[in-house]
Amino acid sequence: TACTTQTQTQIDRDPKQPGAMAGEKGLVLLDFWVSPFGQRVRIALAEKGLPYEYAEEDLMAGKSDRLLRANPVHKKIPVLLHDGRPVNESLIILQYLEDAFPDAPALLPSDPYARAQARFWADYVDKKVYDCGSRLWKLKGEPQAQARAEMLDILKTLDGALGDKPFFGGDKFGFVDAAFAPFTAWFHSYERYGEFSLPEVAPKIAAWAKRCGERESVAKSLYSPDKVYDFIGLLKKKYGIE
Amino acid sequence: TACTTQTQTQIDRDPKQPGAMAGEKGLVLLDFWVSPFGQRVRIALAEKGLPYEYAEEDLMAGKSDRLLRANPVHKKIPVLLHDGRPVNESLIILQYLEDAFPDAPALLPSDPYARAQARFWADYVDKKVYDCGSRLWKLKGEPQAQARAEMLDILKTLDGALGDKPFFGGDKFGFVDAAFAPFTAWFHSYERYGEFSLPEVAPKIAAWAKRCGERESVAKSLYSPDKVYDFIGLLKKKYGIE
Repeated sequence: TACTTQTQTQIDRDPKQPGAMAGEKGLVLLDFWVSPFGQRVRIALAEKGLPYEYAEEDLMAGKSDRLLRANPVHKKIPVLLHDGRPVNESLIILQYLEDAFPDAPALLPSDPYARAQARFWADYVDKKVYDCGSRLWKLKGEPQAQARAEMLDILKTLDGALGDKPFFGGDKFGFVDAAFAPFTAWFHSYERYGEFSLPEVAPKIAAWAKRCGERESVAKSLYSPDKVYDFIGLLKKKYGIE
Repeated sequence: TACTTQTQTQIDRDPKQPGAMAGEKGLVLLDFWVSPFGQRVRIALAEKGLPYEYAEEDLMAGKSDRLLRANPVHKKIPVLLHDGRPVNESLIILQYLEDAFPDAPALLPSDPYARAQARFWADYVDKKVYDCGSRLWKLKGEPQAQARAEMLDILKTLDGALGDKPFFGGDKFGFVDAAFAPFTAWFHSYERYGEFSLPEVAPKIAAWAKRCGERESVAKSLYSPDKVYDFIGLLKKKYGIE
């Protein structure tokens, strides 16, 4: 049909199924199923109730001309096309959605200081988690032990930032929650490669992850921890890592 | 004395001369004279006409308790204290100033797509320039040659992004200009260590740098290219790099 939006489940079942048209809001998301950066955008779009066309990029095979034209600088997903104009970098896309659709539910708070705090923690997640997590499964020996120590520090720091609030956004799921929630599907792999237990290291983050998973916007945007673990296995094979 | 503050000029001439108190807006900037990240904030504050207390951190000697309390996560300058509450990370501080002082001249455009583009290029500068520039003077041989090739690519990319506009913000000095302008004082060192000529590699950026330098907000926030070059010499000595 012409104007459905492709859900995660549809991608799982039939990757060949043609996507919908750009949808009433003119939004197309170039993405890759397991990407936590793309998943941020899917979560934000779902939280805002914005329909969009999901366009899977088969990154294991290569990059499409459409992706290279839309993001010639970084050549990375996710890219959000809005009426054909590309917006790149996941946290910038999230902020674009705040600005471009002011009538949709906001993820950023309105208070200037609270906004800065939200940007700070989203930026912290952005700079730290994926990079450190990748070193957990790419490295061995002392460098791997160092990555493990860093990951524990990152998780404890985020545990402290969350504190006793249900979400980073307070009572409300917000900007930092959308930025960090995709990694809840990666925690299992980080625990296995890093040989640690999340509930022991960061009990508040563990409880928060469960709360995120019960949320429809998150549940429909993520894959199971096992699928993520299998995907890391594929990457290790691709890079020739034992 | 226990709590002096210093302006740029005062640092040059008399580091001991006490500066103003936090100012009518309750703003204190913890900074380090040559930091391009701190200079971004100084430029933005000047563009907005916001008075503030400048508090120099003597980073070559260590980090103050005030800095460690204000930025326990990254332990880095710049930190903007607003009525005692810290805001960290230079680009987040710039966005905070947009939000917290909406009556001051804006650096970000109002159009959502133009805002996203400005955030994209400021983020690009943030991720690429300083890191690549440091590799130019830290490394030797093939890794240094690779950093040189990267720097030429970065400068050409930014040259293309600027295009025929006088500023990244268009006719108006804006967010990307404030983020990138501090590096105009580093170009001389990058040219010397990278053995290239900016006007040859990126003629539009070279002309833009000149325009920035004629702007009071920039001129009073930066030091001469020679002082930056000498500072890099100090860093090399400190790190034991020949």
